[in-house]
Amino acid sequence: MSKQRIYLHDVAPRDGFQNEKVFIETQDKISIINELSECGFAKIEATSFTSPKAIPALRDAEQVMHEIKRKPGVEYTVLIPNVRGAERALSCGIDEANLVMSVSETHNRANLRMTREKSAQGLGQIIEALKGAPVAVNVSLSTVFGCPMEGDIASSEVFRLIGHFADQGITRISLCDTTGMAYPSQVREICKRARAEFPDITFTLHFHNTRGLAQANVLAAIDTGIDRFDASLGGLGGCPYAPGASGNACTEEVVHMLELEGFDTGIDLDRLLAVSARLPDLVQHDIPSQILKAGHRLTTHPAPEGIADMA
Amino acid sequence: MSKQRIYLHDVAPRDGFQNEKVFIETQDKISIINELSECGFAKIEATSFTSPKAIPALRDAEQVMHEIKRKPGVEYTVLIPNVRGAERALSCGIDEANLVMSVSETHNRANLRMTREKSAQGLGQIIEALKGAPVAVNVSLSTVFGCPMEGDIASSEVFRLIGHFADQGITRISLCDTTGMAYPSQVREICKRARAEFPDITFTLHFHNTRGLAQANVLAAIDTGIDRFDASLGGLGGCPYAPGASGNACTEEVVHMLELEGFDTGIDLDRLLAVSARLPDLVQHDIPSQILKAGHRLTTHPAPEGIADMA
Repeated sequence: MSKQRIYLHDVAPRDGFQNEKVFIETQDKISIINELSECGFAKIEATSFTSPKAIPALRDAEQVMHEIKRKPGVEYTVLIPNVRGAERALSCGIDEANLVMSVSETHNRANLRMTREKSAQGLGQIIEALKGAPVAVNVSLSTVFGCPMEGDIASSEVFRLIGHFADQGITRISLCDTTGMAYPSQVREICKRARAEFPDITFTLHFHNTRGLAQANVLAAIDTGIDRFDASLGGLGGCPYAPGASGNACTEEVVHMLELEGFDTGIDLDRLLAVSARLPDLVQHDIPSQILKAGHRLTTHPAPEGIADMA
Repeated sequence: MSKQRIYLHDVAPRDGFQNEKVFIETQDKISIINELSECGFAKIEATSFTSPKAIPALRDAEQVMHEIKRKPGVEYTVLIPNVRGAERALSCGIDEANLVMSVSETHNRANLRMTREKSAQGLGQIIEALKGAPVAVNVSLSTVFGCPMEGDIASSEVFRLIGHFADQGITRISLCDTTGMAYPSQVREICKRARAEFPDITFTLHFHNTRGLAQANVLAAIDTGIDRFDASLGGLGGCPYAPGASGNACTEEVVHMLELEGFDTGIDLDRLLAVSARLPDLVQHDIPSQILKAGHRLTTHPAPEGIADMA
């Protein structure tokens, strides 16, 4: 029996680098993306076409997209906040536009500085602007599993928004656990319902490890038939509400687990770890990745001398 | 329907403090144990009756056991390496003796400085010495899910050793993932077989989070009917083969997850977090606990000012 394929998207070049205090040099970004391309990802979130003033960390979006080496079979997705960003991105030849809004009204206002209604209108304009262009469109819904300001989120709001975008012809939706509030039984419930009510939509799950539950949540989602996940090289990508806590699900930890569990991620873990090993120098701090520190489970160590002769 | 009970044992006072570079003052140990006693644990591993020269970090075992305040309903267990240790422990009134050996020959020699055969004999002597004493005996088998020097461990060896101790009348066995090599499908397989072949033995599972899998492994074990777990306050307890990696499963992360999943741990998470918050000062370094940094999932944060008026 062939192994079940799980598709992984690395979001470190956008979601990770955007959150770093130091500016990651453009050539380093390009080199990291190029190396990730060789690891076997289905998709890489390469950058964001937000205003360079709003997010200076990713002010080099055009140069990154023009200079990376595209690997056939890998989709290069970028975050797009508005029609202006869509136009910039189109001129660079992207594969997918990733649009974002929150399920939580408070989080949407805090994070995107507008009401959900305005966000939905704005996303509608981007979707309209991209019609006819040779790019896929993905909508990422933030705070699906809870809001750091509101607390629990009514799942009716999650499904109302999925329905809203499905009506606009969207077939790709990411359900995002923006600040690590998801837990396995909740994940199972929401994913099961999402797949049952929207069989034509390809869902991606995006977990954070803020409270140590990212891995368990990935397995819970797979139980319901979900087969696409975002994760971030090294576990980069912070949570502004939990200083020092882990950020995104760590790609190499997810790959390590899924391969052990008998899934085919298509990813070369050793090659991936070599890319992750470059991060501490680039971001100038220790990174959350456990696998980078400990190695994979069969990393063996020499036995102490002299123990062979024990009687 | 009442919730299923999961029994948790905190091992930080022994397994955690033993691995710390600084000596934890005796009164601090006593105070941490006393506070843990009020949190709702089924069992607390309080100290170790090893030679004070071999493990100076726990050289105050007698004083700790004499001065802690015993809470009715909580079992106080201690690690016992030999008959001399058993005699010392008995004079302090322990509830349970925890005996340890490895399934891996190499790890047993490296860690305990003797062959498995000698260890099994020595444990037999302790079991004999404790017969008639009012204490329970638990055998902890190390490296059940893999050895950092040998790699994979034949499960036939695991079951041979379980059988060996079952024949000696042992009814409590801990299956320990000493260096974080376990993964969920492996946990499921071993636990299922252990419960089927040894229905009279009460198994405890002891996981490490070295590769980010402790939480997923706990859930996998519960799937097979396991209901007892070791975990360590703050995630204390290192792995000498993975510098900087996480150690034991973190108690507050396990409690947080299990309560969300609908289990009854009997533990007061807020009270537990107050104890964990004392650790960084005591051990003089940052601790792995994610929940201590991020708070439980419904820890809400104030929304930024001015967002209420957005149109």
